Amino acid sequence: MATGNPGSGLQLRSLIRASGELELSLVRVEIPDPAPDEIIVRVEASPINPSDLGLLLGAADMSTARVSEGPKLTATVPPGLMRAMAGRLDQPMPVGNEGAGTVIAAGSDPAAQALLGKLVAGIGGAMYAQYRTLKAADVLPLPPGASAADGASCFVNPLTALGMVETMRREGHGALVHTAAASNLGQMLNKICLKDGVPLVNIVRSGAQVQILTDIGATHVVDSTSETFLGDLTKALVETGATLAFDAIGGGKLAGQILAAMEAALNQRATAYSRYGSSVHKQVYIYGGLDTSPTILARSYGMAWGLGGWLLTPFLMKIGPAEGQKLRERVAAELKTTFASHYTAEIGLAEALDPAIVAAYNRRATGEKYLINPNKGGG
Amino acid sequence: MATGNPGSGLQLRSLIRASGELELSLVRVEIPDPAPDEIIVRVEASPINPSDLGLLLGAADMSTARVSEGPKLTATVPPGLMRAMAGRLDQPMPVGNEGAGTVIAAGSDPAAQALLGKLVAGIGGAMYAQYRTLKAADVLPLPPGASAADGASCFVNPLTALGMVETMRREGHGALVHTAAASNLGQMLNKICLKDGVPLVNIVRSGAQVQILTDIGATHVVDSTSETFLGDLTKALVETGATLAFDAIGGGKLAGQILAAMEAALNQRATAYSRYGSSVHKQVYIYGGLDTSPTILARSYGMAWGLGGWLLTPFLMKIGPAEGQKLRERVAAELKTTFASHYTAEIGLAEALDPAIVAAYNRRATGEKYLINPNKGGG
Repeated sequence: MATGNPGSGLQLRSLIRASGELELSLVRVEIPDPAPDEIIVRVEASPINPSDLGLLLGAADMSTARVSEGPKLTATVPPGLMRAMAGRLDQPMPVGNEGAGTVIAAGSDPAAQALLGKLVAGIGGAMYAQYRTLKAADVLPLPPGASAADGASCFVNPLTALGMVETMRREGHGALVHTAAASNLGQMLNKICLKDGVPLVNIVRSGAQVQILTDIGATHVVDSTSETFLGDLTKALVETGATLAFDAIGGGKLAGQILAAMEAALNQRATAYSRYGSSVHKQVYIYGGLDTSPTILARSYGMAWGLGGWLLTPFLMKIGPAEGQKLRERVAAELKTTFASHYTAEIGLAEALDPAIVAAYNRRATGEKYLINPNKGGG
Repeated sequence: MATGNPGSGLQLRSLIRASGELELSLVRVEIPDPAPDEIIVRVEASPINPSDLGLLLGAADMSTARVSEGPKLTATVPPGLMRAMAGRLDQPMPVGNEGAGTVIAAGSDPAAQALLGKLVAGIGGAMYAQYRTLKAADVLPLPPGASAADGASCFVNPLTALGMVETMRREGHGALVHTAAASNLGQMLNKICLKDGVPLVNIVRSGAQVQILTDIGATHVVDSTSETFLGDLTKALVETGATLAFDAIGGGKLAGQILAAMEAALNQRATAYSRYGSSVHKQVYIYGGLDTSPTILARSYGMAWGLGGWLLTPFLMKIGPAEGQKLRERVAAELKTTFASHYTAEIGLAEALDPAIVAAYNRRATGEKYLINPNKGGG
């Protein structure tokens, strides 16, 4: 066995059985020796992002969660939601998009050897595990002074926020709208936009969230629960000229209201009647699903509009590795400022299966985020 | 006055007053002499397309239509719909997207002079008029043997149908879906796709419409009113691989059902579970609004999807004049075959203001289309 290879380690698995049970468990998996271009990372910090929760808990009703031996957590998937789970039935899935930790073993390639003992961040799933083998070329070495917790959320949120700004530039828009804007990601986006001089309209769902964003310097913050929401939004769109929105909510009328307000803002500047509405393209990308109900579009905004899904991975594939690397380098350079993440609590692998703790991290409350340290307490 | 210039002619105008009245009238307008690069066309055939009806009748309730002196037709716009008319209040609008007729006067440029006495087709609005001045470079000379009626619908439907196929090619799809597929436009699209070998899934709304399309050789026709619709649609999508749809309906669940069926068809071929659904992009463009109710999207088709408005004019601007010219040349070459149009009745300008005739052409029934001949009976 290669120097430093622990031989095996615990990995969290999520399984949905055809019988309608979700089962979370820890299994001991073998760790093969790394290939010449690979490294073994001892994972010390991996965040629970909304995108992880979908895979981790599936459509299970977590009020039915109970502990069984193993340690193991089981919960029931409502029969009506089983159809959406068809693609993953009876396949134990490892979980955890991203994380950071120490390189404890390395393949023979000099690039891999050079990382031995260093703290690195990685992405690619199966991070809720004591050890994760990765390609040396795919990890991001953390800058001096950064901890594993600092680097744990290096990829998903920072690259998503940068991807939004980059998408705006590539698709010819000059300003942005963001919903659920007081989130960790939303705060990051504000810092990027302030630094880059990109006008940003933040849509939040409470007065307290308005305060969070104005405190970090946001100029345009509108509250969708306010009676003056549509007027406030239109005014902010007139001021910024934003014609591109990223929406984490998905369901209900919000995406359509944004398109309608963009159209109203554009028409305030129009000089002649066009039966098809403004010819300026208005776009909303849905990148999350905080509201899983249907999207309702009144189509009161002419014909120059688009709505669609947006995901980080296809975006990175579209821009290519060289452009992606530039974004990653910016994340590393600004890890403790623009891209700083804050966590509500650090939990171990076994704690991630405790129903009370699951209930806490599954609340998805704005500003709350949990960090798993698979080697907490020595693993 | 230039040779052939009649000096003046009747033009149909649509006016919506701030008081809430729609008023259709015929006004006599002066015809200036043509500029060197212009021609005067005596309009002999101009279709009433769905896109014309929106401008002609606005949001008026045509059951309130009544005749007053002039001749003039008036009707009431329901107060709740006046907001959507705000951009056009108290401005008399000429109507009629496209048409064909004889060139009766021409500017001094050789290109304009060469068209004298010829039958040409044109687009650009204000065709519901006895005479229309156009740039010589913008008209399409009709091929030998074609009448004005043959050439009246040269632009909107043929270029829209060709634009759908061209959009499919440019955006990397290999087959098409079309809704309200038994329409004049839908039949044209079938002829193009049969000729070009493009698989086409036709969605219609009755068994009779299935028959219309199978009679002209369509392979895939599914009836959205059938109990087996979703299964039939998915099967056709598996067979064709279509991932792009053009939807004339707009409202209700249909656009989302198409995206869901595309996803189901793609997943039948998938080998591994992806929590975000298929990574193949699925797109629906809404180009009409036969159902003006909201669009309802259940978002059950992963993240690689888009929905948006599609219009001919921005499409032509995007592909540029050289590519647009190729499409126009194809229309001229296949005017009496692929792009043949059939009309329910030919009416004069004054008849277009007769409430009984308005009720007939405003039914927008599949397969029915009216043609205005502004010079019917000598003008």
